[in-house]
Amino acid sequence: MNLLENISQLATCRPDGGQGDIHTIADAALVWDAGTIRWVGPRAELPSEYLAARRVDAGGGLVIPGLVDCHTHLAFAGWRAEEFELRLRGRSYFEIAAAGGGIARTMRLTRAASEDELAARAHGFLREMLALGVTTVECKSGYGLDRDHELGLLRVYAALARAQPVRLVPTFLGAHVVPPEYRDDRAGYLSLLTDELLPAIARERLATYCDVFVERSAFTVEEARRLLLAARALGLGAKLHADQLSAGGGAELAAELGAASADHLECASDAGIAAMAGAGVVAVSLPLASLYLGQSPAPARRWIEAGAAVAVATDFNPGSAPSYHLPFALTLACILQRMTPAEALKGATIIAARAVGLEATVGSLEPGKAADFAILDAPDVEHWLYHLRANACRTTVIAGRPEWRASAAKSSGEAAPGSP
Amino acid sequence: MNLLENISQLATCRPDGGQGDIHTIADAALVWDAGTIRWVGPRAELPSEYLAARRVDAGGGLVIPGLVDCHTHLAFAGWRAEEFELRLRGRSYFEIAAAGGGIARTMRLTRAASEDELAARAHGFLREMLALGVTTVECKSGYGLDRDHELGLLRVYAALARAQPVRLVPTFLGAHVVPPEYRDDRAGYLSLLTDELLPAIARERLATYCDVFVERSAFTVEEARRLLLAARALGLGAKLHADQLSAGGGAELAAELGAASADHLECASDAGIAAMAGAGVVAVSLPLASLYLGQSPAPARRWIEAGAAVAVATDFNPGSAPSYHLPFALTLACILQRMTPAEALKGATIIAARAVGLEATVGSLEPGKAADFAILDAPDVEHWLYHLRANACRTTVIAGRPEWRASAAKSSGEAAPGSP
Repeated sequence: MNLLENISQLATCRPDGGQGDIHTIADAALVWDAGTIRWVGPRAELPSEYLAARRVDAGGGLVIPGLVDCHTHLAFAGWRAEEFELRLRGRSYFEIAAAGGGIARTMRLTRAASEDELAARAHGFLREMLALGVTTVECKSGYGLDRDHELGLLRVYAALARAQPVRLVPTFLGAHVVPPEYRDDRAGYLSLLTDELLPAIARERLATYCDVFVERSAFTVEEARRLLLAARALGLGAKLHADQLSAGGGAELAAELGAASADHLECASDAGIAAMAGAGVVAVSLPLASLYLGQSPAPARRWIEAGAAVAVATDFNPGSAPSYHLPFALTLACILQRMTPAEALKGATIIAARAVGLEATVGSLEPGKAADFAILDAPDVEHWLYHLRANACRTTVIAGRPEWRASAAKSSGEAAPGSP
Repeated sequence: MNLLENISQLATCRPDGGQGDIHTIADAALVWDAGTIRWVGPRAELPSEYLAARRVDAGGGLVIPGLVDCHTHLAFAGWRAEEFELRLRGRSYFEIAAAGGGIARTMRLTRAASEDELAARAHGFLREMLALGVTTVECKSGYGLDRDHELGLLRVYAALARAQPVRLVPTFLGAHVVPPEYRDDRAGYLSLLTDELLPAIARERLATYCDVFVERSAFTVEEARRLLLAARALGLGAKLHADQLSAGGGAELAAELGAASADHLECASDAGIAAMAGAGVVAVSLPLASLYLGQSPAPARRWIEAGAAVAVATDFNPGSAPSYHLPFALTLACILQRMTPAEALKGATIIAARAVGLEATVGSLEPGKAADFAILDAPDVEHWLYHLRANACRTTVIAGRPEWRASAAKSSGEAAPGSP
């Protein structure tokens, strides 16, 4: 039995209430045992049965549920820094893609890499995400785009799930774009996905979700519907990249299918968002992608007022969002999308957990849930997201085990001991 | 004698050429001795006299001049996270100031703090800036706003300059706003600044520059001219907070006076920028402040094309820019202002050094200059600023001494050793 105390503020992020209700507790205590939370509440109300527990000092910090990054393209080879500079010079996403860049370029590099290389890189990313307080990561395939390489990416995720502590939720995104060798045979590629890949993935249990990029450069609503229904018949949940660069009915399709989430949505219609809210589909906002692409950020404030549950994720990928800094994405959600810090945090904990189907086990600090949490060097949630630092996280705990700690030299952070 | 080698790319940031000419060298070597650079060039051309030098391994990283943050409000008490949330909810900077928030609130908290408390906090900030590769920091007073507390802030900077390694350039910003007790006696406050504070500061050599916030909520162009001419007569250089929230002729005044820099400039006129370019006044862009305030970013691309030298700094302060993450400000300058990564880097090295009058000693890697540099975990400048991470800096060296190193556990960074 373990007792975390000396907590300035603890945000339980319980699911009840509105998006801004994160249910904070001042001077809190948290008890866990064997990976599971037993009790959480004000320190003064700690039941006597826990007084003998092993004490852990939170250093007067803020305690939040381990962050859930519910949209990443984690495994890929190469980078695309050159395209960053091309976009600064005014070239569009579509122009870069038409010139052989974009997803197709990462596909070529990814196909040329070994699974060991891909796993080692993704493992390095996960270590840095863990240090930021992230404990659950959704990770998509989608840079293989043929039978062997899509399965290979999903096997990389399966190996990583065994090899390191961050919880992974694998998503099959074979429908990221039509690969070059099928340019004149879209139907053939869709058949490959539906008739060969999905059954193989279901058989090996390699993915929890199937995702489709609905966009004029990628797939139509009709193609997405067909694919996601086939995936559902095999037991995979639905996700959508919807209405990112143009309004295409993706939000409406997500509502129709009862998808777990629809993501991006910069250009989604109000009717689409209302339908999603009615159907309980999580709206995943990706402000880093909007920032990097120079887009107007998605109107998350309006979505919340329309009753939608809004998650915030990084969209980590080598093109439009080359950053896995989820706390930074949350600060951007506040500044660019007028979400409050509490709304942003709920969007990266319990609501993000819902977007990946894990709301029963992670995403909030409640008895019976996994002891996944982060201790931050901040007095409260508002201060944490306002004061943008390299990394305010001091300790990350998964299933009750401290999996990352700031080094002693760094843990003092801004409170320099040797001040003059 | 020390020899840094195994460098994927070194950016000398020599002043010649345009803003984008950072004069990179692949597979470089850098030689320094007793705090001063002796040689820099391609490893293959290393003069034989340096072959016996003590070898230092840069780990295949990127080497840049130590970063220069040429605009910060480093010493203050308290924070203003509440105002962050008020702004998200639609309240303007002026409304918050009128309600007793803003600069006046930080002034009250700062006056109530001891010099030891202020120094300890600022020291903590400098430690984190150092870890980001920052080696020179301009630091303004401006939260004291009376005789004793303005001098107190400048004495805090003098004490910090002796107590820690980051080079500090103190700036007197008594003319930040008119403090409440002089609300009905602007002339009296300006006399205090001109007749009492400036002579005392000059006598004790407490500041290198005098800065004035020219804005409708602060000081007029005429008031700024009078104050900066008085400062010049006492040997202090001129800086201006100009045209941030409204166009007010600040850029033109900076050109007229031959100021070292004019900063912010979001609303500056094209004529003002052209005048600055002609007069050799550095234009300091502060994209974090634009971001936090929800402003359109300053058109730095157009300024560069108009021949201005553009620096990029954080504007670190508890209100409009509560972040000292200079590399992040550089990434924002690329994304929001269409500066290239090379232009942004030059703007935070040699051009920023010029903005603080230190271009002869820091800001570029050339023989005879101070051995101030940072080793980054990135192959080149473009990749570093494209791939936004918590912190890519692995080692920061000031005057030839390593003053910060990533811990062993962290230095592996993304290249995880224990990959599956």
